[in-house]
Amino acid sequence: MASHYTIILIFSVSIAATASTLLSDGLKNDLFPEILRDVAVARLYELGKVSDADGYLERTFLSPASIRAGNLIRTWMEDAGLTTWMDGLGNVHGRIQPPNASKKALLLGSHLDTVVDAGMFDGALGIISAISALKVLNVTGRSRNLKHPVEVIAFCDEEGVRFQSTFLGSAAIAGVLPVSTLQIPDKSGLTVQNVLRENLIDTTEENLSQLKYDADSVLGYVEVHIEQGPVLESVGLPLAVVKGIAGQTRIKLTVRGSQGHAGTVPMSMRQDPMVAAAELIVSLESLCKRPQDYISSNGPDGQCNAFSIKSLSGSLVCTVGEISTWPSASNVIPGQVTFTIDIRTIDDIGREAIIYELSNQMDTICDRRSVSCIMERKHDANAVSCDAGLNSQLKSAAYAAIKRMTGEDIGDVPVLMSGAGHDAMAMSHLTKVGSLIRLLS
Amino acid sequence: MASHYTIILIFSVSIAATASTLLSDGLKNDLFPEILRDVAVARLYELGKVSDADGYLERTFLSPASIRAGNLIRTWMEDAGLTTWMDGLGNVHGRIQPPNASKKALLLGSHLDTVVDAGMFDGALGIISAISALKVLNVTGRSRNLKHPVEVIAFCDEEGVRFQSTFLGSAAIAGVLPVSTLQIPDKSGLTVQNVLRENLIDTTEENLSQLKYDADSVLGYVEVHIEQGPVLESVGLPLAVVKGIAGQTRIKLTVRGSQGHAGTVPMSMRQDPMVAAAELIVSLESLCKRPQDYISSNGPDGQCNAFSIKSLSGSLVCTVGEISTWPSASNVIPGQVTFTIDIRTIDDIGREAIIYELSNQMDTICDRRSVSCIMERKHDANAVSCDAGLNSQLKSAAYAAIKRMTGEDIGDVPVLMSGAGHDAMAMSHLTKVGSLIRLLS
Repeated sequence: MASHYTIILIFSVSIAATASTLLSDGLKNDLFPEILRDVAVARLYELGKVSDADGYLERTFLSPASIRAGNLIRTWMEDAGLTTWMDGLGNVHGRIQPPNASKKALLLGSHLDTVVDAGMFDGALGIISAISALKVLNVTGRSRNLKHPVEVIAFCDEEGVRFQSTFLGSAAIAGVLPVSTLQIPDKSGLTVQNVLRENLIDTTEENLSQLKYDADSVLGYVEVHIEQGPVLESVGLPLAVVKGIAGQTRIKLTVRGSQGHAGTVPMSMRQDPMVAAAELIVSLESLCKRPQDYISSNGPDGQCNAFSIKSLSGSLVCTVGEISTWPSASNVIPGQVTFTIDIRTIDDIGREAIIYELSNQMDTICDRRSVSCIMERKHDANAVSCDAGLNSQLKSAAYAAIKRMTGEDIGDVPVLMSGAGHDAMAMSHLTKVGSLIRLLS
Repeated sequence: MASHYTIILIFSVSIAATASTLLSDGLKNDLFPEILRDVAVARLYELGKVSDADGYLERTFLSPASIRAGNLIRTWMEDAGLTTWMDGLGNVHGRIQPPNASKKALLLGSHLDTVVDAGMFDGALGIISAISALKVLNVTGRSRNLKHPVEVIAFCDEEGVRFQSTFLGSAAIAGVLPVSTLQIPDKSGLTVQNVLRENLIDTTEENLSQLKYDADSVLGYVEVHIEQGPVLESVGLPLAVVKGIAGQTRIKLTVRGSQGHAGTVPMSMRQDPMVAAAELIVSLESLCKRPQDYISSNGPDGQCNAFSIKSLSGSLVCTVGEISTWPSASNVIPGQVTFTIDIRTIDDIGREAIIYELSNQMDTICDRRSVSCIMERKHDANAVSCDAGLNSQLKSAAYAAIKRMTGEDIGDVPVLMSGAGHDAMAMSHLTKVGSLIRLLS
């Protein structure tokens, strides 16, 4: 874990350094390891224990553990000298407003909600490293001299586990959240608005739209996040700057067949949605592993499509994470099977080509098996390119921090794509974004 | 539905006629349509509404609706002049004990529990038609002259939905239920014994074994059941006598892979248990549709195996009815997928050959995908042959009843295999069994 602690320190120093380019006097050579490493690590562990579940980490939108986590983060923000508030969707904000600063604020942040059985760094790292960095600026008195306000936001819902609609918090601040979102129900039938009211937050369609930040009031958005994947580890890199974030489509696929008794319907007379779903899942994997075998970058008229097969096949990932049968009994051929598909790639046009091909394959398989298949697109987000200027500052800060701490010259800080759809995706609708990612398992 | 009513009448008349072969004077030509058809149909509808669920039929072992159903059946048994009791596992019994009868009793019955979203005839038909038949013998005074006692049993658990262990009721009476069954937990953690105690039935291991009937006290067991499949309808037959009941194996298959973020693990680096499970399910279907392509009736040494590929491929059915992923989120590559497999065929040795081949295919698929797969056999029941003597009586009675009612001569009553594992399977360990099945959708 020692190397993890070091990396956390690198992050916090990098963030502080990035913020300090907005300082009048610049950050000196102090590393403040107590605040930037020891306190940050302790807080990561503490926040990692705030869970709705026993034995694993789970915090969904405005769940009891999410409320406790938000309150805890707010105390840390106040400890860093920030002015704090919770907005009408449950995002927790902490802001430095220097006396002579310009109007445009640098926003830092990440999400406080989690997936089911999440890792303790997911989301928490970006919030805690930003707070730690600002605490150093505060205790050294430098925050008063910042040229720009700096605001940390702990977003209430990035994962979308509860309402199947990602980026509730950041989308509202970016002004891209439809007001109809308030009426989306969770599995128990409670809507977003019901859940807000339960927590004494009375948010109507009208004041939801008022959560949007004015683009002129924002300088940019920077997020630190764990990689959540094996690539950096496999190539032996400690961290990377994110060049862009993959676009994403979430699909719900429903297969309806003919329910029957497991013992009495001959194989030849079945219209079994479970086997149809299984065949679809196997086909989806083949398509996403080798898109070049199914899709030509030459269109039907011999024209070139506007995407590169190479960039598509290098970044395309497809996942079936949830599946359920009805009536779900071992001795009944299901009448219906429902599953989710998550498709991501940096290539938005390529993603549409994959969905089109998947839809064709679905029609073929479902027709052959005499089952009915319905594909519903539940969520679409286009790929996001990170801002070259912000990334250049992040690269320089990370390079310098690593050199000061370890004495090593790692050469150029690597630049990678991110397959995870962070809040930066939503924030890109409001302002330029930059992002650092790092492997932490 | 008119034809359904007629068939119910045929059944009840057939059962009464079968019982009447045990009468001193034989059943006369009366059809008693009020009792054998109208009351029986009304009771089927009434029992079909006794459910634990809203909008569909569900009665699991000793659930509140099962208790209500048992009490209702008991009042119908008493109305038919039967002496009634509930035994230490929740089976409901009703018996005619004629004064000069021999010791050996004819047992009639079926199950009062249901699958989830069951049809109203499943189980109920066998219980209600037997009670109706005995009511006719009672109101005509003929029951006093029966040569043998006749007992109707409404079995408490045939489907095994709650405890994943079929034939709780009939297995106990047949003496083949392990006493350890009392300690099996349901999904909420309650054991069979807990659930019995909740219903004021204090059953210990010792008195569980006392539920077994003495084989010398039983003449045979006859069950009427719906077909629950499309075969009779597809060949245009109204009913059949059951030659035998398919053997069955229930398997729980667990696939463990590497849990990961749906956006950040490249396709080539995944160990995805969901896709492995899907490939296994597709393979299982191919194997069960065309066993002759995978299994030779010639053994490895050129010797003939002891099963016929023809009988195997004609009766083999394989079903995946339940599947679940962990952690079950659309944006997480599952760490684990679990599903059920239900395999049935009349050929017990062929069933073992299929499971052996499935296990080989599983090893190949799971090795190639670097996931771990565990196959657990949760339930095994060998095929059962029905008794030729009982079946002959059932055929004659059904033939005569159809002729008397419709004037039609349908020729020989057809004889079919049953793919459904009725209580007759368990009862075959105690006594000879016979069974009539009929399509009712």
